[in-house]
Amino acid sequence: MGEHRLALCSQHYPEWIIQQTQETIRKYKMFNPSDRILVAVSGGKDSLTLWDVLFKLGYSVDGIYINLGIRGESDYSNRSETYCQSFAASRGLKLQTVNISEKYGESISEMSYRKMRSQEKPCSVCGLLKRYVLNKTASDGKYDVIVTGHNLDDEAAILLANTLEWKSEMLRRQSPVLPAEMGFTRKTKPFCRFYERETAAYALIQGIDFIEEECPHSENSKQLFFKNILNGWEIEHPGRKFQFYATFLNARKDGLFTEITRESPRFNDHCCPNCGQPTTSVELCAFCRLIKDPADAKK
Amino acid sequence: MGEHRLALCSQHYPEWIIQQTQETIRKYKMFNPSDRILVAVSGGKDSLTLWDVLFKLGYSVDGIYINLGIRGESDYSNRSETYCQSFAASRGLKLQTVNISEKYGESISEMSYRKMRSQEKPCSVCGLLKRYVLNKTASDGKYDVIVTGHNLDDEAAILLANTLEWKSEMLRRQSPVLPAEMGFTRKTKPFCRFYERETAAYALIQGIDFIEEECPHSENSKQLFFKNILNGWEIEHPGRKFQFYATFLNARKDGLFTEITRESPRFNDHCCPNCGQPTTSVELCAFCRLIKDPADAKK
Repeated sequence: MGEHRLALCSQHYPEWIIQQTQETIRKYKMFNPSDRILVAVSGGKDSLTLWDVLFKLGYSVDGIYINLGIRGESDYSNRSETYCQSFAASRGLKLQTVNISEKYGESISEMSYRKMRSQEKPCSVCGLLKRYVLNKTASDGKYDVIVTGHNLDDEAAILLANTLEWKSEMLRRQSPVLPAEMGFTRKTKPFCRFYERETAAYALIQGIDFIEEECPHSENSKQLFFKNILNGWEIEHPGRKFQFYATFLNARKDGLFTEITRESPRFNDHCCPNCGQPTTSVELCAFCRLIKDPADAKK
Repeated sequence: MGEHRLALCSQHYPEWIIQQTQETIRKYKMFNPSDRILVAVSGGKDSLTLWDVLFKLGYSVDGIYINLGIRGESDYSNRSETYCQSFAASRGLKLQTVNISEKYGESISEMSYRKMRSQEKPCSVCGLLKRYVLNKTASDGKYDVIVTGHNLDDEAAILLANTLEWKSEMLRRQSPVLPAEMGFTRKTKPFCRFYERETAAYALIQGIDFIEEECPHSENSKQLFFKNILNGWEIEHPGRKFQFYATFLNARKDGLFTEITRESPRFNDHCCPNCGQPTTSVELCAFCRLIKDPADAKK
């Protein structure tokens, strides 16, 4: 599979995925068996597969599902939540859900429409909101680490986007592990070395039910554009997607980039006067400025 | 034109190219009116256009043509030389030619075949040889600076190749100006901000005769592969090729990369015991190891 070009049967393939995940956790010092882990699940194949693999490896992992209130033709968010609920129930695992509409009075689509009518997609608002809720849930629940199901295709696409636009701060920070700092919980990506098709194959072989549909907003998204470039490149040169990501991590480890400077926004060490979460703003944080009634952030 | 989206008539377009070239020379401190300049010409549109523009700007510029002995169906190298000779003669400019077969006993194709039979293309051997001859000619002739006709499409393709493979040393060094160091003459690229179609338009409007054919070895070359990726990207997002290159130069200027370390091969400050040119090797330089009879390097 992938850069390994292995041929494994349906018995040994899941074992290989589990063992490779443990190897990635070890290689990047992601977490220890004693850590309390919070996995962000979307109902899709990557995050549910990740939860399954970490559970089988014996880690202590609770899940969080953020219901963004995206409806589309298929009632996307509610259906995704059902997949997460069934997965957790079938394995006796603990799942928290945060319903954005109920907690903050508006769905992500409504927030996005109110804030930026000129823009079509709520993706940037959605990213901000998910980062906030995820970090606050981890912090309130005293978790040691947040894990997400980002795979190699995701990471390579983000890297390509950051590279083609030479976003210095993003290039310095992109990593399988973002260390804890200033009120932010450590974040890790144990699937960063798996191709998307590899996690999909695991989910199919193990019979994990997941939502196959993509988010209705993802069509023609910027990330898809970069994924297509990489897929074209991969077809002409198999293994190059992995090499692109791996050589980047090596170049960074070997000191290609200068350190983040004190001038970086990340070093403005404030807490939001409303919600108390860390922020780079000197006034209300971006989240409290986003939601309709900032008082809801104190709940 | 290009990222500027200008509409200029055939009278003002050449003036715009000339003025923009002077602006690039000034912006990157490439050279002064008192410098003696050596332009490397291939007979193609970029290098002859560059010679024409620098001549019109009043700089003191001699040309050098390296005849590599590539024949193909069209007697490629000899025909290219004819274009350079006619160009120089029509303007009363001085052109030196170095005929590789006559000076070193073999054409580039023969050298390449002798050294690396398993590889199809002589491109890497050709690059080594051109860099050597260019630098030796500049050094022997006491020129202050070498200029080459690399355009934005060339530079962006080289950058993309170096980036997708995260070649740290190449990323640190890629620049419109390579300063003089350890026996190497300064090298500059005054056309690095022009799209290929912009230099082509100048050549056509000014009636510069150039060889339209590409080198017979360039087909399916690695550089073409990266140019195709960038062209696809440019079609979807006009101006992005320029932005990719310009944001890279800005990020570098703003200190994204660490300095070249003392361990870098560039810091092995030797001279070749045979030809006396600077080299990173402790024995014969790569050029003296390439040619059939190293005694020829002393001529």
